[in-house]
Amino acid sequence: VKGFVSLVGAGPGDPDLLTLKAVRRLRKADLVLFDALVSPRLRRLAPRGRWFCVGKRAGTLGFSQDAIHRLLIKAARRGQRVVRLKGGDPFVFGRGGEEALALAAAGVPFEVVPGVTAATAAPALAGIPVTHRGLVSGFVVVSGHAEAAFRPVLEGLPPHAATVVVLMGLTLRATLASVLLGRGWEPRTPAAILQAAASRGARSWLGRLQELGTAELPLPGAPGTIVVGRVVSLAGVLGASQGAATGADAEPGSLRSTR
Amino acid sequence: VKGFVSLVGAGPGDPDLLTLKAVRRLRKADLVLFDALVSPRLRRLAPRGRWFCVGKRAGTLGFSQDAIHRLLIKAARRGQRVVRLKGGDPFVFGRGGEEALALAAAGVPFEVVPGVTAATAAPALAGIPVTHRGLVSGFVVVSGHAEAAFRPVLEGLPPHAATVVVLMGLTLRATLASVLLGRGWEPRTPAAILQAAASRGARSWLGRLQELGTAELPLPGAPGTIVVGRVVSLAGVLGASQGAATGADAEPGSLRSTR
Repeated sequence: VKGFVSLVGAGPGDPDLLTLKAVRRLRKADLVLFDALVSPRLRRLAPRGRWFCVGKRAGTLGFSQDAIHRLLIKAARRGQRVVRLKGGDPFVFGRGGEEALALAAAGVPFEVVPGVTAATAAPALAGIPVTHRGLVSGFVVVSGHAEAAFRPVLEGLPPHAATVVVLMGLTLRATLASVLLGRGWEPRTPAAILQAAASRGARSWLGRLQELGTAELPLPGAPGTIVVGRVVSLAGVLGASQGAATGADAEPGSLRSTR
Repeated sequence: VKGFVSLVGAGPGDPDLLTLKAVRRLRKADLVLFDALVSPRLRRLAPRGRWFCVGKRAGTLGFSQDAIHRLLIKAARRGQRVVRLKGGDPFVFGRGGEEALALAAAGVPFEVVPGVTAATAAPALAGIPVTHRGLVSGFVVVSGHAEAAFRPVLEGLPPHAATVVVLMGLTLRATLASVLLGRGWEPRTPAAILQAAASRGARSWLGRLQELGTAELPLPGAPGTIVVGRVVSLAGVLGASQGAATGADAEPGSLRSTR
């Protein structure tokens, strides 16, 4: 096999949060297979490559995981440099592991290019450090797409022992909240819903665990990150200060000066 | 205050895993305050700035957290563009939250530039996805520097409910292992110790939870990341394949083509 597949993390949304390695792989790519959540603004970084969306987009079903494996293997066998571009990090809920296994089984050379995961970046950009001395020294990241995915972890977690970060959990936020409350977390524990993080359209809801289940989403229908824990209280100070700072900054979120 | 402080994540070690935004901030920095774990190779990215190590280095004590706050505030008040450069992500065990609070209290404008955290990147580069469909749908990240930091989280965690990632935990690895075994994790659960991740000198130990406590470190004295969970079994296939792939790659880990 002469081709090569790079499983690349695109970061949390802002093209400026791509790594140098990701940019380099995109520039040389013949083919970019991307997920629906990847920002279309990235396309300018790979001018010579064909871009092909394999994820679910409004009304369409997207490709099956098997079909994606076949596309990757076929392109590599044709000698192409393929970038498989995923939001965040390719190995954090990205099914990157499955793709890597399929490539290994087919004898296709590949690499993983880690990315900035929304699990830590979405909170950070809202002024929430997932760990903070004196408050908490660990964090838990779970998928919120199904109760079976998060209940075993959260049911065991003593109140405030770790910050809870939930990706893909907006639909089941009431179940999430009730699992934590059932485990003994105080109803007044600070909680946040972060949407469109790392973009100019970023919106957040800040409240209490007891209100999380019925919280109105700032951007209905859009995905988001949920954070629960004492560190969320820092968003009041750090989110605001940082917001002001970003406004004063000369070149926020722009790709211009790298081109 | 005319100056500006950027709390910047330097990623897991490889300069290629810096974000575009981090590189841009470094290029314009007047002053870079960096931790001991930050690669000296990054220095070429900030040719106009003064570089100043505030972390602990062989035999020296480093600066107190208060002294770092004072340095940041003083430089910003002088009108300087300051980059506070931390390994990994500034808000994952980086004490970035404390620095952000000090800056906010002093009225100094600042921002956080999220980075690629070793908690996910070190495993990924060794062929270990922290989540994997059918194996595990969440992960826990704890600091291993003190038993009180990890025991409450790990004691509650049902076996195999989440991948366990421990940063700064090599010294207490025997305690870590005994907490998990005491919670009912199978002694044969795959475990890994990853050192010098994201560098050419990367070394890993792959074994079983029951051997973790007495495992010989590949790089004695160096820091590292511990991973425990079924996903570690994938390192056998994915670590090897990826290693071969990296060997065939034209420009691994080099900064040359970005300059």
